[in-house]
Amino acid sequence: MAERAIEAVVFDIYGTLFGFGRLAERVRAIVGDLALLEHWRVKQLEHSFLRTILGEYIDFWLLTEEALDAVCAQLELELTAEEREYLLHGWLELEPFPEVRNALELLRERGQRLAVLSNGSPGMLEPLLRHADLDALFEVVLSADAVRRYKPSPAVYALAPAALVVPPEQIAFCSANGFDVAGALRFGFQVCWVNRGSAKLDSLGKQPHFTVHSLLELAEYL
Amino acid sequence: MAERAIEAVVFDIYGTLFGFGRLAERVRAIVGDLALLEHWRVKQLEHSFLRTILGEYIDFWLLTEEALDAVCAQLELELTAEEREYLLHGWLELEPFPEVRNALELLRERGQRLAVLSNGSPGMLEPLLRHADLDALFEVVLSADAVRRYKPSPAVYALAPAALVVPPEQIAFCSANGFDVAGALRFGFQVCWVNRGSAKLDSLGKQPHFTVHSLLELAEYL
Repeated sequence: MAERAIEAVVFDIYGTLFGFGRLAERVRAIVGDLALLEHWRVKQLEHSFLRTILGEYIDFWLLTEEALDAVCAQLELELTAEEREYLLHGWLELEPFPEVRNALELLRERGQRLAVLSNGSPGMLEPLLRHADLDALFEVVLSADAVRRYKPSPAVYALAPAALVVPPEQIAFCSANGFDVAGALRFGFQVCWVNRGSAKLDSLGKQPHFTVHSLLELAEYL
Repeated sequence: MAERAIEAVVFDIYGTLFGFGRLAERVRAIVGDLALLEHWRVKQLEHSFLRTILGEYIDFWLLTEEALDAVCAQLELELTAEEREYLLHGWLELEPFPEVRNALELLRERGQRLAVLSNGSPGMLEPLLRHADLDALFEVVLSADAVRRYKPSPAVYALAPAALVVPPEQIAFCSANGFDVAGALRFGFQVCWVNRGSAKLDSLGKQPHFTVHSLLELAEYL
C-alpha cells in the first residue's frame, strides 16, 4: 500500500473500535424498539456537522444530550430523567468489538504506535477506554474538543500528525464511518475503511487505500 | 415581532416554496415506493453539509446526482440512464405549494421586496421558477453557488443583505427546514418557520421569531 512505511495507526472510536450493542439493549429496555437509537445516532452526527458549519461548538456530551432530546421530541417520546440519564451513560460503557484487543496488541507487537482520534469529548473517551481496559494500549487519545469543531473538519485530523510528530502519509487512519473516511482521505492519511458488515461505502467520491472486515486484518497491511 | 419594520422577505426553495409531490410521483413510477426519495433528500443534505466542512464544493446539481448515485448504491438499486435522468430532472419541475402564488402577490401588494436564497444552483433555480411562472415575482434569486458553500454557512445568508442592501434584522427569512431556520437565526434575520404539517422543529436550541402553517399567514406578521 503506502510507499513509505506506516509508523502509527489512528482509530476512530464510535462504530469503529466500539459497537452500539449494549446501548441498543438499553434503548430496547426502555422504548421497546431500536428506532430511537438509529435516529439518535443520525441526529448526533447531523448536529455535529451543523454546529461545525455554524461555528457554534458544544462538546460531544452536550451534543449527544441535545440530539437525544431533539429525537425524543420528534418521536413524541417522553423519557423520565432516570431513563434519559441511563441512555446517555450508555455512551460511557459501549462494548469494544470482539477482535479489538487482540488486533491492537498485535499491532503494538509489530511496533506500531497507536492513537485514538474521536469526536467524543475527553470526558467521554477516558471513562470509555478505561471501562474497556484498553486505555494503556494507546499512546495518545485525541479529541475534536481540542479544536472545538467536528470531523470531517481538517482541523480535527490535523491533531494526529501534530501529536504523533509523524506526517499524515505515514499514518494509517481507520474508521467505519463514511464521512470520516471521506475526511481522512482528503486530509492525506493512508485510510482504512472498517466494514464489518456488507455496507456500501459513501466517502464522497474518493476510495480508501484499503478495506478490512475485522481489525485483525490490519496487521496484514502494515 | 420586529422592532424595525421588515423591508424584504427572503424564501428558501426546497420544501418551503416548492414541494416534493411531483418528484415523489416520478420515484413511485420507477421504484414503486418512496424510500428512495426520503433517502435521497437526506443524503443530498448530508453531502451539502460534508462538502461545506471539507471545503470541497460541487454545485447542487452535481451534488444531487452524487446523492442519488450514493443512495442507489446503498439500496442496491440499479437505474437505467433514462430513469436516472428522469428523476434528476424532477428537481427542475417541482410544484409550488398551492398558496405560494397568492401569498407572494399579497406580500408584493403590501410593498415587500421578495427574494429567493437557496442551495440550488442558478441552473436549477431559473428553470424551476420559470416553469412555475413565479420568476417575475422575485427581485433577486440568490444561490449558495456564489460563495461555493452551503447553508447553514453564514456566508450563504450574507448574500441576502448584500444583494438587497437591507440589514439582516429588517429581512424576514422563511424556511421549512430546521437546519435553515437554525442558520438564519444565528445570522440575525427575523426568521419564520414554515410548518405545513405537524413536524417538531429542530433548530439547535434557538426558536424562530414566528411560525406559520401557510405562507398566506405571513402577511399577518409583516
